[in-house]
Amino acid sequence: MKIAITGKGGVGKTLLASLLSRAFAEAGYSVIAIDADPDANLAATLGFPHPERVTPLSEMSTLIEERTGARPGQAATYFRLNPKVDDLPEKYCQEYNGIRLMVMGRIKKGGSGCYCPENALLQALITHLLLARDEVVILDMEAGIEHLGRATAKAVDKLIVVVEPGRRSVETAYRINKLAQDIGLQNIAVVGNKLRSQSEREFLISNMPGFEFLGFIPYDQAIVDADLDNLPLVDASQQIITDVRNIHQALLSTRKEA
Amino acid sequence: MKIAITGKGGVGKTLLASLLSRAFAEAGYSVIAIDADPDANLAATLGFPHPERVTPLSEMSTLIEERTGARPGQAATYFRLNPKVDDLPEKYCQEYNGIRLMVMGRIKKGGSGCYCPENALLQALITHLLLARDEVVILDMEAGIEHLGRATAKAVDKLIVVVEPGRRSVETAYRINKLAQDIGLQNIAVVGNKLRSQSEREFLISNMPGFEFLGFIPYDQAIVDADLDNLPLVDASQQIITDVRNIHQALLSTRKEA
Repeated sequence: MKIAITGKGGVGKTLLASLLSRAFAEAGYSVIAIDADPDANLAATLGFPHPERVTPLSEMSTLIEERTGARPGQAATYFRLNPKVDDLPEKYCQEYNGIRLMVMGRIKKGGSGCYCPENALLQALITHLLLARDEVVILDMEAGIEHLGRATAKAVDKLIVVVEPGRRSVETAYRINKLAQDIGLQNIAVVGNKLRSQSEREFLISNMPGFEFLGFIPYDQAIVDADLDNLPLVDASQQIITDVRNIHQALLSTRKEA
Repeated sequence: MKIAITGKGGVGKTLLASLLSRAFAEAGYSVIAIDADPDANLAATLGFPHPERVTPLSEMSTLIEERTGARPGQAATYFRLNPKVDDLPEKYCQEYNGIRLMVMGRIKKGGSGCYCPENALLQALITHLLLARDEVVILDMEAGIEHLGRATAKAVDKLIVVVEPGRRSVETAYRINKLAQDIGLQNIAVVGNKLRSQSEREFLISNMPGFEFLGFIPYDQAIVDADLDNLPLVDASQQIITDVRNIHQALLSTRKEA
């Protein structure tokens, strides 16, 4: 099963990615979690003991040069757009609590454009993970679907757009929905996060007609406090753990119907 | 005076950009606010009556073709990297309550790479606004400093990084600080937003030694409620308006010292 998680910055994509990864792992699935959002920290959220020691793939210059033929940041007239990546999940995963993690890292934009060796490697890796692996893959993305394209859209069982009670995150969801339609990705669902009241829940439902809601997660100060105390967010709120288990069940039952 | 605002997604960059724009306008300055974050909606936050009617520059295909020589999305072997832009602020600003607004819009990445005609036009325009205009320019950016470079770094009087009480937004601030140092941008300051308690304020101060704090803004449910009720956020909280006026004063006094 392949799950991609997106939504406006700050809505809680990484927490959902963490808790869903754990729900799948607890149910006996082999899980690969992918941190594809340079502005997130999936390793820390999942409770990895030394998140700062996880080197993002985009910073592995020697690996990138070995596989693409070009060194990041250096002018290259040629590099392989389809580098070998099928051995990378085994070689460069970190594992903790039964969840394997890969961190994509940040592409330094600028001189080289989007067609740079780092991007070629990461794109090939994500395509490989989505198309050729049997594991459950949970992809924590930025506010968009930039890592997905027509070829990978069909492999995504569910694109989850996280929203919070607020117009901006709903606007972002509509924008992402449009981008997803453009590449033929139909399996979109919404999770409402940080809800403080029934009226906030109704705000989301009434402002997003036609969207499938997979579940709702309440605001819980315990999450904020755990973050400030540098404790793993996955363990912070029993209520939210339960809610995400229900979302996990909803994902499994959708799949059975399909 | 040129102010660039950045920080992790969801921390409140756009609200600060709106209220600072208003504070400068009320003090008699001529203000151009630039929405350079495709995930934000500065027009709506500023209370523009029909924000959906503001066409982002990146979607003005005819203009982009006229100025760069290449049509967005079409394969072009050549386009002008330095298109004429000095007339654009007059022609494509929307004005409301004494604030002129330009919306950059989203670059559709993909086939054309980062070197695309849309990007060339936007980049030239931002460079022009920062280097050649007398107005106060307030730039609402994504979680990074991608629109800035060595040439424009010197023109930025203050790069404001907005943080909220949470480790992720602090990590993003450190990352942005590093990127800023790389291009020689030294004038960085922090605004703490969405504070619920004195201990959250202390969390930020103790976790960001060496950063200059320009001010602090409390969490105010009135902002969330105004958003859900589709009311302009700039008018929602008198407390926050006052706090941002103080930040405005702090910016002016920094400048006098310089």
